[in-house]
Amino acid sequence: MTFIRVNLSTGTVKAQEAPTRYRLLGGRALTSTLVFEEVDPTCDPLGPDNKLVVAPGLLSGGPASSNHRVSFGARSPLTGGIKESNAGGTVGYQLSLLGVKAVVVEGAAPEGRRVAVRVFEGPGGRPAAEIADAGAWWGKSTYEAGALIHEAHGAHCAFAVIGTPGEMRLPAAGAMHTDKDGVPARITARGGLGAVMGSKGLKALIVDPGSRRRVDFADRERYHAGRKRYVSNLRTTPATAETYPRFGTAAMVDVVNNLGGLPTCNFASGSFDRAEAINATALRETILKRGGDPSHPCMPGCVIRSSNVYVDRCGNEIVRSLEYETIGLCGSNLGIGDLDDIARINRLCNEGGLDTIEIGATLGVAMEAGLAEFGDAEAARRLIREILQGTVLGRLLGHGAALTGRVLGVKRVPAVKGQAISAYDPRAVKGLGVTYATSAMGADHTAGQTMREAVEHHKPEGQREASVKMQQYCMVFDSLGLCVFAHNAVKDNLEILADLVNGRLGTSVTVEDLFRQAREVLAREVEFNRRAGLTEVYDRLPRVFREEPLPPHGLVFDVPDDELDQVTKGWAALVKRDRAGAGARGAGK
Amino acid sequence: MTFIRVNLSTGTVKAQEAPTRYRLLGGRALTSTLVFEEVDPTCDPLGPDNKLVVAPGLLSGGPASSNHRVSFGARSPLTGGIKESNAGGTVGYQLSLLGVKAVVVEGAAPEGRRVAVRVFEGPGGRPAAEIADAGAWWGKSTYEAGALIHEAHGAHCAFAVIGTPGEMRLPAAGAMHTDKDGVPARITARGGLGAVMGSKGLKALIVDPGSRRRVDFADRERYHAGRKRYVSNLRTTPATAETYPRFGTAAMVDVVNNLGGLPTCNFASGSFDRAEAINATALRETILKRGGDPSHPCMPGCVIRSSNVYVDRCGNEIVRSLEYETIGLCGSNLGIGDLDDIARINRLCNEGGLDTIEIGATLGVAMEAGLAEFGDAEAARRLIREILQGTVLGRLLGHGAALTGRVLGVKRVPAVKGQAISAYDPRAVKGLGVTYATSAMGADHTAGQTMREAVEHHKPEGQREASVKMQQYCMVFDSLGLCVFAHNAVKDNLEILADLVNGRLGTSVTVEDLFRQAREVLAREVEFNRRAGLTEVYDRLPRVFREEPLPPHGLVFDVPDDELDQVTKGWAALVKRDRAGAGARGAGK
Repeated sequence: MTFIRVNLSTGTVKAQEAPTRYRLLGGRALTSTLVFEEVDPTCDPLGPDNKLVVAPGLLSGGPASSNHRVSFGARSPLTGGIKESNAGGTVGYQLSLLGVKAVVVEGAAPEGRRVAVRVFEGPGGRPAAEIADAGAWWGKSTYEAGALIHEAHGAHCAFAVIGTPGEMRLPAAGAMHTDKDGVPARITARGGLGAVMGSKGLKALIVDPGSRRRVDFADRERYHAGRKRYVSNLRTTPATAETYPRFGTAAMVDVVNNLGGLPTCNFASGSFDRAEAINATALRETILKRGGDPSHPCMPGCVIRSSNVYVDRCGNEIVRSLEYETIGLCGSNLGIGDLDDIARINRLCNEGGLDTIEIGATLGVAMEAGLAEFGDAEAARRLIREILQGTVLGRLLGHGAALTGRVLGVKRVPAVKGQAISAYDPRAVKGLGVTYATSAMGADHTAGQTMREAVEHHKPEGQREASVKMQQYCMVFDSLGLCVFAHNAVKDNLEILADLVNGRLGTSVTVEDLFRQAREVLAREVEFNRRAGLTEVYDRLPRVFREEPLPPHGLVFDVPDDELDQVTKGWAALVKRDRAGAGARGAGK
Repeated sequence: MTFIRVNLSTGTVKAQEAPTRYRLLGGRALTSTLVFEEVDPTCDPLGPDNKLVVAPGLLSGGPASSNHRVSFGARSPLTGGIKESNAGGTVGYQLSLLGVKAVVVEGAAPEGRRVAVRVFEGPGGRPAAEIADAGAWWGKSTYEAGALIHEAHGAHCAFAVIGTPGEMRLPAAGAMHTDKDGVPARITARGGLGAVMGSKGLKALIVDPGSRRRVDFADRERYHAGRKRYVSNLRTTPATAETYPRFGTAAMVDVVNNLGGLPTCNFASGSFDRAEAINATALRETILKRGGDPSHPCMPGCVIRSSNVYVDRCGNEIVRSLEYETIGLCGSNLGIGDLDDIARINRLCNEGGLDTIEIGATLGVAMEAGLAEFGDAEAARRLIREILQGTVLGRLLGHGAALTGRVLGVKRVPAVKGQAISAYDPRAVKGLGVTYATSAMGADHTAGQTMREAVEHHKPEGQREASVKMQQYCMVFDSLGLCVFAHNAVKDNLEILADLVNGRLGTSVTVEDLFRQAREVLAREVEFNRRAGLTEVYDRLPRVFREEPLPPHGLVFDVPDDELDQVTKGWAALVKRDRAGAGARGAGK
């Protein structure tokens, strides 16, 4: 597997065999390790000293379903801490076909130059890369730029592209990735990695796999045995066989609303009176009636197919895929109870490569401050257009909920470490509150989703344990390139994961090895943040979540601070324990 | 001496004898100690858990000239760290006449209530306080509100009042204090303490000394002996006898411009081609020609008289007092070379109680971002009016240079810990660079002014030592209530300070005792910041000052980082050394 290093300041490109010490690191484990090792934690996140690290998961490219996710990593301009954000689609898939383990983009294009990095099949079938001119794409929306990229480099290319907010270095900007149909509909959304691309003058990463159609396996038999069990589990587990394919992530609308945790009118309530108009049933029926696709795979070979293609009354696509987080943050959180309205907001965000979580939370705060009325979808779109255009107001909103709330003087600002809380109010889903507070990533449900854990979400007890467990699971999945939705199908047969890894790489890792490595990376991420000046003071939810009872149940977030500190301090302690254990085992051999 | 504690949440007022352990603490030493002891460093600076601590200097109220300064302290909404900001004028004087050692304002007025705290002569001549309604003054400028305060409570009252930016909790807001003529022309400017007042619903602190005309002395003879030497020194030292009375702080314009350190067009240059139009000579001649006052005392009994009253062509007052920092930040830094223009900008700031340093730096950043042309004074005033009115743009600007620069995407942002750098470019005056970076106060020349130290300002050598020395001096002066301009007159006879203190209090402190206490408080301030999450990562100048050479000399800031860390780590080490020394002396007795 190859490391590709592109230095945009010097214009140099290097492709070299990845050092063996990174062999078991992929996806988030690899981006976070490289950022930890190579990026000065006090550098300007929007300066040339930051690095954008792109790494497909360890299993990416393989035929095992839902395993092509790709991680982007850097120091975040939104949180100031370490950041990883991953997406489905085809970038990870095609990088893996080429044998690329990571692309590290360093430096920044000279003043006024706008570039793309193109990865392709070089001489001898080895991966190569070049810096291409992107001047013609600059200033264009992700869809427009995407079409031009396909025109210039072929429609078979995968790409990740930024919109104008990323170009303007606004920290609510991510990068849009091609899905399996070549539509820039998937997103490495969180933490402003699109702004990091923009700060480097990097409009797009383009991946042309050339003649490559499959990845190699060190132990094909073992891999396929694992794969068989994995796919069989996916097809027999209710969540992955029924719920996700049928309803997608929107199934969460009713679940979370019933828990009283659906963000409503800037987290003023956990219950939305029009939830039925925007829930999974409404979504599915609307899509079916209009001839859209209610069960779409975002990446090749995915059997879960949790995505959708949302169309208008005439059957024309508005957006793909309308997900729960968008419905929660850009719908109920803005008092908007109409799927068409939400889809159009989503579309505008996608055109800009904007994180719908951050934008939904930001607009909620802006509405709270009186910049628009809750429920006014047209006003919401007008505010997003301000971001796309980069007006002063747009630049403010494009800096996300925390900064917007600070400037506008709003008391209830749903953010941790400068990053917006996802669509689960932490007063009602307390395990996620622990994750939001303690993850090095800032508030991010994908860093440790506890919704499906056997805890009473309303009670403070057991939430720390649930979050600690799921933060490890999420790290393992994000490192393998596996969609976390597969979690339910393998959680009782985790050895499948080891089989897939060993089959692919010819290694002999155990499940415990994978989790031990996950803890090491989690500890590394926290350590990066500490060096960046993010002490445990920042590992807290906003006080308002402890102080203001959430209707309808009147709950506050009440997991004690010392439990939060146990989490962040815990990773290093667990690593120490792991190493002592390994030493003891080694001594006993 | 009395501590007055006012809790605005509960409406309670308590006056009690100050604990004896605070006996030697006044001004900044007292505010920082009380903030350290009583304020949660992670509280919301704009929430009810923050406290506003008001403390006159230890010598305040006495007849020794230039000694009535009063400190305001709190957790800063601008920096997130500990903050002290002091002003001349009459608030400190009159609090001391009443025998008040500190006023601690806790909590916040109930939603919708706007209040003032009035301190007055209670039964038996003892100081008392009440919470008065300030509803009629809310929404008014400092001048308008000040006139109404005098109308309601008598023109003999001193007060500190906030303008609309403070009411709106904008962190560029300070509080305007009455000068000796009762004009709200002095300011506790820095760090957003006006916003802290606004967050508590506190429009003004009013001080009515009643029948009190003088303070008591424990050893009148010793005090007056000290005072005689002190005043004699003031009258024979060139700086205090000639420069300050004749030219005021504006004398710095030529000095700093010649050093190539005068902020010009958002710190793009250290040399301003129209410096002659705004220097001390131009200021003095303009004032004299028009019938203003070129040498005005800001507090009763001051022999330095460094202030001025700046008038228009018809002899009508525009502003008092036009100071160097304002000329530098709101003049040359904005490319504005006209004293009338600068005075009118200053006036607008004073009406809002805005810190002219923060505002000048912010407008420089805004001009750099293209919101106005450098040199356009009318545009500058228009932007300030946006702040006074609280538009979205105004709220952004009212959050200061650092946040404005971040949102507008400006590279050269002159701020440390979120607070704007004063009118000495740290590339040309490197000792101040050390102070800006390392002071717990954020970038603040008054925390350790090195301009008059015997160092080569352009060279990195010796700057750490100069800053460390002056940070101690400034702490001593700020704690005594002494104007730092008196420093030159006593620096070779520091025992005068001990005489004044001992004469006033009946103590037997040495000069070394005063400096030892200063180091203790400096260490306390740094420790507060650490607990607030401001690690040494924040004790840095913006990188651009290390990287971008400053015209005309091409210097960068090049004092090594480890020297900066030596300063902040140094206070605790010095305190340890001091205590060990005290122990050794104690053991030898």
